[in-house]
Amino acid sequence: MKVYLDNAATTAVDGEALRAMLPYFSEEMGNAQSVHSFGRRAKAAVEHARRQVASLINADPTEIIFLSGGTESDNLAIRGVARAYGASGRHIITTRIEHPAVLAACQSLEQEGFRVTYLPVDRSGVVSVESVRDAIASDTILISVMHANNETGAIQPIEEIGRVIDEARAAGSAHLRFHTDAVQSVGKTAIDVARLGVDLLSISAHKIHGPKGAGALYARKGVRLAKLLHGGHHERDRRPGTENVTGIVGLGKAAEIARARIDEMDRVRGLRDYFESELRARINDVNINASVARLPNISNITFCGIDGEALLIALDLRDIAVSTGSACSSGSLEPSHVLTAMGFRRDEVLASLRFSLSLATTREEIDYTLRAIEEIVPHLQRLSEEDDEEAALPLESEI
Amino acid sequence: MKVYLDNAATTAVDGEALRAMLPYFSEEMGNAQSVHSFGRRAKAAVEHARRQVASLINADPTEIIFLSGGTESDNLAIRGVARAYGASGRHIITTRIEHPAVLAACQSLEQEGFRVTYLPVDRSGVVSVESVRDAIASDTILISVMHANNETGAIQPIEEIGRVIDEARAAGSAHLRFHTDAVQSVGKTAIDVARLGVDLLSISAHKIHGPKGAGALYARKGVRLAKLLHGGHHERDRRPGTENVTGIVGLGKAAEIARARIDEMDRVRGLRDYFESELRARINDVNINASVARLPNISNITFCGIDGEALLIALDLRDIAVSTGSACSSGSLEPSHVLTAMGFRRDEVLASLRFSLSLATTREEIDYTLRAIEEIVPHLQRLSEEDDEEAALPLESEI
Repeated sequence: MKVYLDNAATTAVDGEALRAMLPYFSEEMGNAQSVHSFGRRAKAAVEHARRQVASLINADPTEIIFLSGGTESDNLAIRGVARAYGASGRHIITTRIEHPAVLAACQSLEQEGFRVTYLPVDRSGVVSVESVRDAIASDTILISVMHANNETGAIQPIEEIGRVIDEARAAGSAHLRFHTDAVQSVGKTAIDVARLGVDLLSISAHKIHGPKGAGALYARKGVRLAKLLHGGHHERDRRPGTENVTGIVGLGKAAEIARARIDEMDRVRGLRDYFESELRARINDVNINASVARLPNISNITFCGIDGEALLIALDLRDIAVSTGSACSSGSLEPSHVLTAMGFRRDEVLASLRFSLSLATTREEIDYTLRAIEEIVPHLQRLSEEDDEEAALPLESEI
Repeated sequence: MKVYLDNAATTAVDGEALRAMLPYFSEEMGNAQSVHSFGRRAKAAVEHARRQVASLINADPTEIIFLSGGTESDNLAIRGVARAYGASGRHIITTRIEHPAVLAACQSLEQEGFRVTYLPVDRSGVVSVESVRDAIASDTILISVMHANNETGAIQPIEEIGRVIDEARAAGSAHLRFHTDAVQSVGKTAIDVARLGVDLLSISAHKIHGPKGAGALYARKGVRLAKLLHGGHHERDRRPGTENVTGIVGLGKAAEIARARIDEMDRVRGLRDYFESELRARINDVNINASVARLPNISNITFCGIDGEALLIALDLRDIAVSTGSACSSGSLEPSHVLTAMGFRRDEVLASLRFSLSLATTREEIDYTLRAIEEIVPHLQRLSEEDDEEAALPLESEI
């Protein structure tokens, strides 16, 4: 049995989404900018997908910009707003638990003279609405707070922050723009951009059973964005480059399916909760790192006293895929910046794993995973205790 | 019969390339950054593709950066070099016939205080090596000249320009970097980055029977590039974002096939030359807009006295796809900047069409197209003459 519990890193493309994409690789391979019928059919497919994505988040199709993925979407939102509104102010507010694309885009702006406030989070990984309110200054032009965290699933109070921003606008901060990275929450929980009160929202196809290499940025009508890339007049002059027709079609179909199946997330939540309650019952010293409001598919667990990487590898040997931290940061040797921001000690961070489910996850897979953990974890915990005892003894050379 | 003669706009994905991609959508859908076996297999596929692309242009695999396409590749080369070497100089040299991605990237830098020289071309669409030599100043940091033009196929003297640049470096311009947009020439003519003497070379997958949404930038070892996008440490810290594994695998396989089939371009050249000689024989007043060195698959034709758009539409009604100018510019109402730079009058530009063949183009398709042109063009030429006569008469209201 192969068990893939790393759906927060990436997901399998839905069979229906892939079938929708297939004709556009070869027979219907037109460039959507071409005048002839091949081009017009490609264009029609792109515009159909635009309506599908808009519909998932209650936006107007003209507010959807297709681009290469979540990282580009976060960058276009943050650097695009900063450069378009830089004359109105040079202050940006974000949080310490954002995706590296948001954090690095903000850091790049600091090097260009912008001031960035990185808000803390509480022990459950949630930013406080009050801290956002307190951080708003007269020169704040952008607030970027993720909708749900990719490592813990903690849902942030976006709607409440939206109201605080509305108040600030009424009080004179007319140019304040609000961005949320919804890469993890789209398809897991219902999203309505009007209700959330955001101006910009980032989406990635491959996190919702669409293909890698495609994403979208929702940009409310009237929001100005400086371009990241320069070239042709594609995407209403906001993102040049030949449209990735197959990627866009796949994203559109995945969005349509995600919308249709959103209620099934209750079943995923049930499986996740079963996984967590069984873990608590069967394993000593586990902590479930959960916020009150949380995505239904993510479980972040601290297995006290063990090395998470060792557990990950032992599970991998049994064909169970999980992760420490996020895939996006795994090139770095730093322990999770998210758990660190939540106040975890370094040993707690290193003992934590993320299990992320999907609509395809079955009870059998969860049971198989629980049995594997039950066999491996006590063994690793014993090893770790022996290590500690050994460490407490004087080394031979010291005798 | 459907005849696709717009392969310079985009190509059908090769069946073998698509088959190579398919497993990576669903079964092998790992994130290439993930530690577990799904991730490792994705990573292995990406690295295999990197060797395939490197092999096509005689580069080292570590010199290949995967990204979202030709536009991003041109932007990363030009803006990346300008921002990395801006302290050494603020002058850039390019030509008037570059792709909009190059031209717009250069224009964006002009707004940031860089000086850009846009070199002219001759009537056949070729830039002179002497004009490059004369334009080099002590503060020139980047020269960007396309390998072959997308509208005419005119091959530029890259190797000779490379030698001029070597001389300039020896004379003190150590920081001078040389970029070529090879999006149209890759797979049509053999490319060896060492022989061309370029530091940076742009590739797009969908122009060589790979998928849309994938491309690469060759960046010679030691060339510094400022990042366009900020985030994770992917692509040796040069391009963040989850790797588009399927897109990269498709690009890799397309590169491998292009290399294996490069000699078949002689057959394409033969078909193209047959098309042109038959056109000359059968149609009055046609000009073939050809340079001495030219890609084997592109034919740019001026049908004197007619409206190219009308011919395009008449051909489209017979399922023959061709283009006026390039797809990338077709959002704009401006006539081809390439033909304009070649000194064409506005009416000549508007009377010109591009026919671009591929390895899949057949003699039957060319004959079908010739018959269609033979029927349509004389009719359009007569209409145009009648229009001219009418225009010469006073309008009724003026009588």
